[in-house]
Amino acid sequence: MTGSRTSTSAAPRPIVAVIGAGVIGRGWSALAAAHGWPVTVFDTDLPTADAAMTEIPSRVRALVALGRADLDIAEEGLSALRAGRSLLQACGDADWVIEAAGEDLHTKQRLFEGIDGVARRAAVISSSSSGLAMTDIGARCRDQSRLVVAHPLNPPELIPLIEVVPGKFTAARTVDIVSSWLQTLGRIPIALKREVPGNVVGRIAAAVYRECIDLVLTGVVDVDQIDRAVSLGPSLGWAAAGPHLTYHLGAGERGLSAFLQGLLQSFEVWWSSLARWEHLEPEQVRALVAQVHRAYGDKLDQIANARDRRLASILKALENSKRA
Amino acid sequence: MTGSRTSTSAAPRPIVAVIGAGVIGRGWSALAAAHGWPVTVFDTDLPTADAAMTEIPSRVRALVALGRADLDIAEEGLSALRAGRSLLQACGDADWVIEAAGEDLHTKQRLFEGIDGVARRAAVISSSSSGLAMTDIGARCRDQSRLVVAHPLNPPELIPLIEVVPGKFTAARTVDIVSSWLQTLGRIPIALKREVPGNVVGRIAAAVYRECIDLVLTGVVDVDQIDRAVSLGPSLGWAAAGPHLTYHLGAGERGLSAFLQGLLQSFEVWWSSLARWEHLEPEQVRALVAQVHRAYGDKLDQIANARDRRLASILKALENSKRA
Repeated sequence: MTGSRTSTSAAPRPIVAVIGAGVIGRGWSALAAAHGWPVTVFDTDLPTADAAMTEIPSRVRALVALGRADLDIAEEGLSALRAGRSLLQACGDADWVIEAAGEDLHTKQRLFEGIDGVARRAAVISSSSSGLAMTDIGARCRDQSRLVVAHPLNPPELIPLIEVVPGKFTAARTVDIVSSWLQTLGRIPIALKREVPGNVVGRIAAAVYRECIDLVLTGVVDVDQIDRAVSLGPSLGWAAAGPHLTYHLGAGERGLSAFLQGLLQSFEVWWSSLARWEHLEPEQVRALVAQVHRAYGDKLDQIANARDRRLASILKALENSKRA
Repeated sequence: MTGSRTSTSAAPRPIVAVIGAGVIGRGWSALAAAHGWPVTVFDTDLPTADAAMTEIPSRVRALVALGRADLDIAEEGLSALRAGRSLLQACGDADWVIEAAGEDLHTKQRLFEGIDGVARRAAVISSSSSGLAMTDIGARCRDQSRLVVAHPLNPPELIPLIEVVPGKFTAARTVDIVSSWLQTLGRIPIALKREVPGNVVGRIAAAVYRECIDLVLTGVVDVDQIDRAVSLGPSLGWAAAGPHLTYHLGAGERGLSAFLQGLLQSFEVWWSSLARWEHLEPEQVRALVAQVHRAYGDKLDQIANARDRRLASILKALENSKRA
């Protein structure tokens, strides 16, 4: 695998170990392999690991087909893709260990303890956690300075944002190294100033999802209609300008204070009427799942491919409009 | 103005009156004029009305430049654009009266009473309200069957979603007519099943905005960073697949119930920790406005133009990926 370091490409190609071969681990692996980086994937569950070794190459080829990766470089990455036989073997020579296990504190703590014991001293270890604190996940590690959360969205190989969240003991150098690798992978790292449950994205997503569930369960709008509304309304707006900027532009030249003068009162009415429950009952989960299945059926592979095509087109459009 | 009815274009071109010449009224006017429709704009505030008569043509020309409108058709619309001298004169021959006044119930109630008194019997009257109920807004009108909320986002001429919300007395025919006009204007109407404060979009936006404000005011992340995170993360994802579908695709082929099995517990932790305040104190508003100005400065015209270019590119990309 070290052969890839002598590749003709100018940017360094760190050796990557991805620990956890589920949806997110496969995405990380596809992303790094598509950039020609040598990746070893490890999962204690053998069927999951086997399925990943089929899916990762197909995701890499999809990136090439979508115009998001170079064929020759991707082939280099695919020829350097390995299934790890053990945590030790997967992490032993890695520069960057990416943990992508289930979102459970104890699982991640034990895993980090194991990785910390077998990774090289100079290696950096990141967690894909969507909302746990690095300080907690790494509590049993000897060297906590090299740990950092680097949380991608799904699919990680397409959505550019990565939340980078240092723990209490994370070294600035660790944030810098991971951020620079992420940029080499075409990602856009955003560093949080401190740990908070759900990071930033999980909190925003939770706020939206709660209201979207509530509007469906209370019969205001159907699943496919609310999805369409969010897609073709606020999301388009926010993709072009984030929420703060959107409202700064909401009163013409007069800026945010004029906007709030006109609409703060409305927002206060809405804030006081938003869904505020913190728990879904099993029968609510069943009702929601049934409605989502009725709306979208079960051909999820096809739907995901169409979603990925839309994502790739949007990304290209944003890149072009930046250049224009 | 009736001359436009004999235009060569196949689709009918209703005569439109836009009442209220602020940001949203100008957007509606630009949208309809860009489609060659005859528009009369009226505002009781003369400087606002005058400024609108300059800005609407420039917005129409921007739509042509962005590839979102046909030059010849737009010129027809611009030559039929008028400033109304009175409510009566603006609404007198209109097929569709679009109210776009400030978001205040009493203002809108009085305005609707006035419009109801001067509009033709066959005219349809829509409100751009982002969150008030048509049933309340139209309470003083004689004929409430022809009233409906048609709420656009900003800028209305670019973001395709329009929330269509019938009041208790709205006729199905009114919803059908307005939806069909909206489709002719290239909009995507989504009909809500019942009235709810903030409609659907206002509620989602309020949920996101509260959390975005909270994350800034509590020092987790800066204004420009949270905007970037929302733009390049969840919004991109939701633009390609709405929230329900996103999570249905979040566990690979196994669908929503597998996703919730893995992540419902995390969501419940986040739901219980989200911002829950319902009111912003004046000093919080001041702090927020100061941070937003520091992040974006005051050249809002340039920033809005860049935002509109991004929006137009994304829309084109979505249309192309649909055709592909």
